[in-house]
Amino acid sequence: MGETLFGRLALLGMGLIGSSIARAARQQGLVGEIVAHAKSERTRARVVELGIADRVEADAGEAVLGADCVILCAPVGAYAELAAAIAPSLRAGAILSDVGSTKQSVIRDVGPLVPEGVHFVPAHPLAGTEHSGPDAGFAALFEGRWCLLTPPPGTDEASVARMEEFWRRLGSMVSIMEPGHHDRTLAIVSHLPHLLAFTICGTADDLEGETRQEVLQFAATGFRDFTRIAASDPVMWRDVFLNNREALLEMLARFTEDAQAMARAVRWGDAAYIEDKINRGRKIRRSLIELKQA
Amino acid sequence: MGETLFGRLALLGMGLIGSSIARAARQQGLVGEIVAHAKSERTRARVVELGIADRVEADAGEAVLGADCVILCAPVGAYAELAAAIAPSLRAGAILSDVGSTKQSVIRDVGPLVPEGVHFVPAHPLAGTEHSGPDAGFAALFEGRWCLLTPPPGTDEASVARMEEFWRRLGSMVSIMEPGHHDRTLAIVSHLPHLLAFTICGTADDLEGETRQEVLQFAATGFRDFTRIAASDPVMWRDVFLNNREALLEMLARFTEDAQAMARAVRWGDAAYIEDKINRGRKIRRSLIELKQA
Repeated sequence: MGETLFGRLALLGMGLIGSSIARAARQQGLVGEIVAHAKSERTRARVVELGIADRVEADAGEAVLGADCVILCAPVGAYAELAAAIAPSLRAGAILSDVGSTKQSVIRDVGPLVPEGVHFVPAHPLAGTEHSGPDAGFAALFEGRWCLLTPPPGTDEASVARMEEFWRRLGSMVSIMEPGHHDRTLAIVSHLPHLLAFTICGTADDLEGETRQEVLQFAATGFRDFTRIAASDPVMWRDVFLNNREALLEMLARFTEDAQAMARAVRWGDAAYIEDKINRGRKIRRSLIELKQA
Repeated sequence: MGETLFGRLALLGMGLIGSSIARAARQQGLVGEIVAHAKSERTRARVVELGIADRVEADAGEAVLGADCVILCAPVGAYAELAAAIAPSLRAGAILSDVGSTKQSVIRDVGPLVPEGVHFVPAHPLAGTEHSGPDAGFAALFEGRWCLLTPPPGTDEASVARMEEFWRRLGSMVSIMEPGHHDRTLAIVSHLPHLLAFTICGTADDLEGETRQEVLQFAATGFRDFTRIAASDPVMWRDVFLNNREALLEMLARFTEDAQAMARAVRWGDAAYIEDKINRGRKIRRSLIELKQA
């Protein structure tokens, strides 16, 4: 356990990520006090029961009063409203950060609302499970995972360094990335896979009676793994898709061309083409294993 | 341990599935003797080292001599040649079975080559991992998994019953299914998910320099899971795609329509449509968990 990094940390949103930060920050002795806010009364009541925050506030503005660090942990579609609600209550010198999966939209929505003297350091921990809500969180969620910081040009360097230390002490590896580049990278490694997983579940659900029943009964590896990905939080993912629209549509367009080329190879029996594509998948898997990301 | 079901079992192909059958059948005391055949000398040598068969034969015809049950465990594209090679050596009354992921093609390729008096019972255990080769197999692979039998009309009922018992004693649940129906069901639960996983790996591999590097470095949940699926055996999957062409292309066409509808919703900001599709994914996941298939 090291020195306290922030006297008071305010977490706005107490789902999987917010509640994991609360647990990990306390376990690591990173903060003096944790104030939690959640929009839903049920979540607030559950956070009180779990005892993972020192104080729980129904009002977001109340929650951030006197906080040295405020982290938005709600779905990105709620950020603009949340930022407007807390702006008058943020203290000068405070750091405002977030955990959203899209970064250009967050800078667009939150940036203009950040008061003079408050340091805005957008962040994205690449960590999660298919579960959601305050019960789903756990202190080890960020261990060995990347956290990407995407500070806009001109961001206070000392604040970036503090958020970097914050995430390192939660167990993460930290990298600084340009927001647009972040959004393109995440579109292919996370947003598109989720879109495909959600879609195939819908395709299966639309099948005629008997086959549909058997899809559930005989879900083999493949579909089963896709349904796990597709079990993720609907509001969070709806907001991610809508807030990384251009990069996501671009990656989906490339993917669709590639899938059509594969379909053509299957139709015309081009065995060499199919085998080559499959081998590229294996090669990428091996690279991931070497990079310890698998 | 129950009674011996077959005096001699011949396994043609000793990859993940063949070597798992060998291990499980011996562990369960299901067979008197196991004779293994593999096309590659390296695999045969490894099977000898592992000691998972009583005898290893380089010649498929030699391997099946006197066998009461012969199971084809090679990629389905090799079945026609293999069936032709063993046909003269099969003894009357023997059961010929397989483990291929496509069943209409197997009946088309192998059926006409089955000698009078030999009982052909096509089978497909829905079990596997992303690993391949004789070292990847393990005795518990089939436990709690489905094995689908797709006997063509007129198949000897006693032979079907024996294969049913064989798979049950390997730990599987068994169901009888019409071959065409099998192929349509597997196209959506297994073949299409693999095609999508292979394809997205190729799409990522084609990205421009910097983004491509970062895809590997920051592979988040989603892409990482897809690469695991995509690590599966290339020759096996090439053969599956080519041998379930019509059902696979039909399911891919439906999926592509659905993905395009999702793209349109993302482009035009149709939040309700996106959320509804995501919720269907969650519903399917819940059904799978209730059916204990997750």
